[in-house]
Amino acid sequence: MEFEITSKDPGSMARAGVIRTDHSEIRTPVFMPVGTAGSVKGVHQRELEGDIHAPIILGNTYHLYLRPGLEVLKRAGGLHSFMNWDRSILTDSGGYQVFSLAANRKLTGEGAHFSSHIDGSKHLFTPESVVDIQRTIGADIIMALDECTPWPCDLDYARKSLDLTHGWLDRGLQRFRETDPVYGHGQAFFPIVQGGVFRGLREESAHFIAGKQAEGNAIGGLSVGEPEEEMYAMVELVNGILPGDRPRYLMGVGTPVNILESIALGVDMFDCVMPTRNGRNGMLFTSRGIINIRNRKWMNDHSPVDEEGTSFADRQYSRAYLRHLIISGEMLGAQIASLHNLAFYLWLARTAGEKIISGQFAAWKREMIPLLSTRL
Amino acid sequence: MEFEITSKDPGSMARAGVIRTDHSEIRTPVFMPVGTAGSVKGVHQRELEGDIHAPIILGNTYHLYLRPGLEVLKRAGGLHSFMNWDRSILTDSGGYQVFSLAANRKLTGEGAHFSSHIDGSKHLFTPESVVDIQRTIGADIIMALDECTPWPCDLDYARKSLDLTHGWLDRGLQRFRETDPVYGHGQAFFPIVQGGVFRGLREESAHFIAGKQAEGNAIGGLSVGEPEEEMYAMVELVNGILPGDRPRYLMGVGTPVNILESIALGVDMFDCVMPTRNGRNGMLFTSRGIINIRNRKWMNDHSPVDEEGTSFADRQYSRAYLRHLIISGEMLGAQIASLHNLAFYLWLARTAGEKIISGQFAAWKREMIPLLSTRL
Repeated sequence: MEFEITSKDPGSMARAGVIRTDHSEIRTPVFMPVGTAGSVKGVHQRELEGDIHAPIILGNTYHLYLRPGLEVLKRAGGLHSFMNWDRSILTDSGGYQVFSLAANRKLTGEGAHFSSHIDGSKHLFTPESVVDIQRTIGADIIMALDECTPWPCDLDYARKSLDLTHGWLDRGLQRFRETDPVYGHGQAFFPIVQGGVFRGLREESAHFIAGKQAEGNAIGGLSVGEPEEEMYAMVELVNGILPGDRPRYLMGVGTPVNILESIALGVDMFDCVMPTRNGRNGMLFTSRGIINIRNRKWMNDHSPVDEEGTSFADRQYSRAYLRHLIISGEMLGAQIASLHNLAFYLWLARTAGEKIISGQFAAWKREMIPLLSTRL
Repeated sequence: MEFEITSKDPGSMARAGVIRTDHSEIRTPVFMPVGTAGSVKGVHQRELEGDIHAPIILGNTYHLYLRPGLEVLKRAGGLHSFMNWDRSILTDSGGYQVFSLAANRKLTGEGAHFSSHIDGSKHLFTPESVVDIQRTIGADIIMALDECTPWPCDLDYARKSLDLTHGWLDRGLQRFRETDPVYGHGQAFFPIVQGGVFRGLREESAHFIAGKQAEGNAIGGLSVGEPEEEMYAMVELVNGILPGDRPRYLMGVGTPVNILESIALGVDMFDCVMPTRNGRNGMLFTSRGIINIRNRKWMNDHSPVDEEGTSFADRQYSRAYLRHLIISGEMLGAQIASLHNLAFYLWLARTAGEKIISGQFAAWKREMIPLLSTRL
C-alpha cells in the first residue's frame, strides 16, 4: 500500500491524498460503504462502482468468519473473488461485533471468547487468529484486534482495556509480520488507537500506535455515545500525535457533519452504517439537509429524490414514489434510499478532497455545515 | 391497443404476435412481472428494461388503491409517471386481493365490501368503481371485476359465482364505454372467463365473454390448487371458444412448464409472483432445471449463477455467493434471485415466440419440458 498527500488545507489539518492498493487508487478523504457479510445491503456491486463511485468497501470479519466461513472464502480465492469486487476492501478485526452482537462474550488476555449470534456455537478470536482470518478473507487493509472501550466508562476500566488492546496489538503485529498474503496481492495492517475520552490515555495510545510505524492508523472507540465535542477533542489530540504521512481512519463515524469536521481535523478514511441503516428507515442525507421521507409533507412531492444527487436513482425516482415504497415496506424503497445516501456520502468526501486541492475547503465547509444538519 | 398475429405453430394452438399499446410494442407470448404496489420487488425499473427486457408489467389495483392511493396517483399523472415506467402496464381489478388479503370481505350484487389489511378501514369495490380506479391508475390494459372462484368448490357455488362475475362484467363494460382515459393514452378492457373446473360453466363463460368482442380476454380462476391436467383442460376448452384474433391472458400462471404448455394451448400473456416470491426464498428457475440455492451442494459452487442466463446478475455472481446471501438473509440475495428468475421467465416466453416463428416450437418444447422440471 502507498499513501501520498497531494494537498494540504492551510487553515486546518485537512489534507487530500491518494492511497494505492493492488486493487485500486483511493482518493482521500474517502467514505467506505459497509458490506457487512460480503454485500452492501440493497446495493449491487455494479452500482457501487458506477453509481456510488466507491473505490473501497468494508467487510466485517465477525460476519464473514461465521458465514460463509473461511473454507468457502478460501475456495473462492478470497472475498474479492467471492463477491466479484475488484476494487479495494478493508476488513475490521471482528472485535467490535463480538462485543455488540455475540452472546456469552468473555475477554481474557488470550483473546475474546464468544458464542455465535446465529447458532450459539463457541469461538475464540485471538490477536493472531484474526490476522490469519483476515489473510484468508484477503482484504487490502486489515485491522488489529482491539477492545472498543464503551462509553461511559471509568478511568480504571479504560486503563485496563487500553492495556489489553496494546498487548493484543503487539501480538497481532508479530503474526502479521510472520505471515504472507494468501492471494498474491498486498495487505496493510492498521493498529487502532483507543483510550475512551480520557486525554491521558488517548495521548499514550496515540504515541504507542505511532511507534509501530504501521502503513496506516485507525482511531476507534469514538461515536459510541459520547458528546460530539469530546469526540472531536479526542480526534484532534490523537491526530496531532499520529504520523502525518500515513492515512488516518476514524472508525464508525458518522453523520455528514461529523465527517466534514473530522476531515478538518486530519482524518482521511471513514466508514459507518448510517447511510444504509438510516436509509432503510427513510432518512435521506442531501447537500441541502436531512429528509425524513416518511413525513407526510413529501406525499405529493413529485420532484426527483435529489436533483443534485449523483446516482441514477436520484433522478429516476420521485420523493412521493420513494415515500410510498418506504411506507409500504417495498424492498425497492430501501434500495433507492441506500443508493442515494451512499452516493451522497461518497460525493461529500470526494468533494471535500477537491475543495482542499482548490484551496476552498474552509469556505465550502463553513457553507455546508449548517445545510447538512438542516431538517428539510 | 392493437394485436397482430405474426405466426402460428402448425402442430398446436401456439401463436406468436405483437400487442401495440400507446406505451410499447409487446411481442407475444409474454410474461409480465408483477409490480404489486408500483414496484417489482427487489428490482429497479432500469433493470426491468435493460436486463429483464420486460415490455409490460402488472400492477395490483387493490394495493395501489390503498397505498399510495388515488389522490397521489392522480397528482403524479398516473402510475407510469409515478413509478417512472414508460412501457406498458396492466392492472388487475382488485377482486383477487380482496378475496385473498382483505378482512371482513363480503360479496353482494353491488360489489365486494372489505376492510383494508393495512389499517382496517372499510371499502367497497364495485364493477364500476374498479373501472374508475383503473382509469385513475392509468394502465394500458385494465381488467373487469370478477370473483376468482375457489378450488375446490361445488357446482352450485361455481354457478352463482359465475353469474355474479357475468353480471359485474356487463356493468363494468358499460362504465368503461361511458368513460375516457385520464392521461391521453388509450386503455383496453379485458373481461375474465371463470367457471371453476366445470366444463359446462367454462364453456358458457367463454361464449359469454367472446360475445363482448373485447380487445383481449383473460382466463381467471385457474392455478388455484386444482390438478394441472384440469387446468390445461379448461384452458384448451376456453381457447377453442375465445376469439382467435384477440390476445388471451391466463392470469396468475405459473411454473415454466405451465407456461410452455399453455402457450401450446394458445395463451399469449402470463403473470405470476412465482419468479419473485420463490426467488426470494432461494428457488431459481433455469433452462437446465430448478435450483434450490439453499441446498448445501451449492456451498462451494463458484461458477456463475446461470451461465446461460440473460441478466447481468447471472454472470456477475456465483452460486456459492448467492447461496450465502440467501441463507444470511441479505437483501442482495433476493435482488439477484428475482432478477435472474424474471429474466429467465421473459427469456422463456420470448424464445417460445421465436421458435413459433421459426417453425421449431414443437421440437423445442419437447426438449425443454423435461429439463424445466428437473431438480438440479
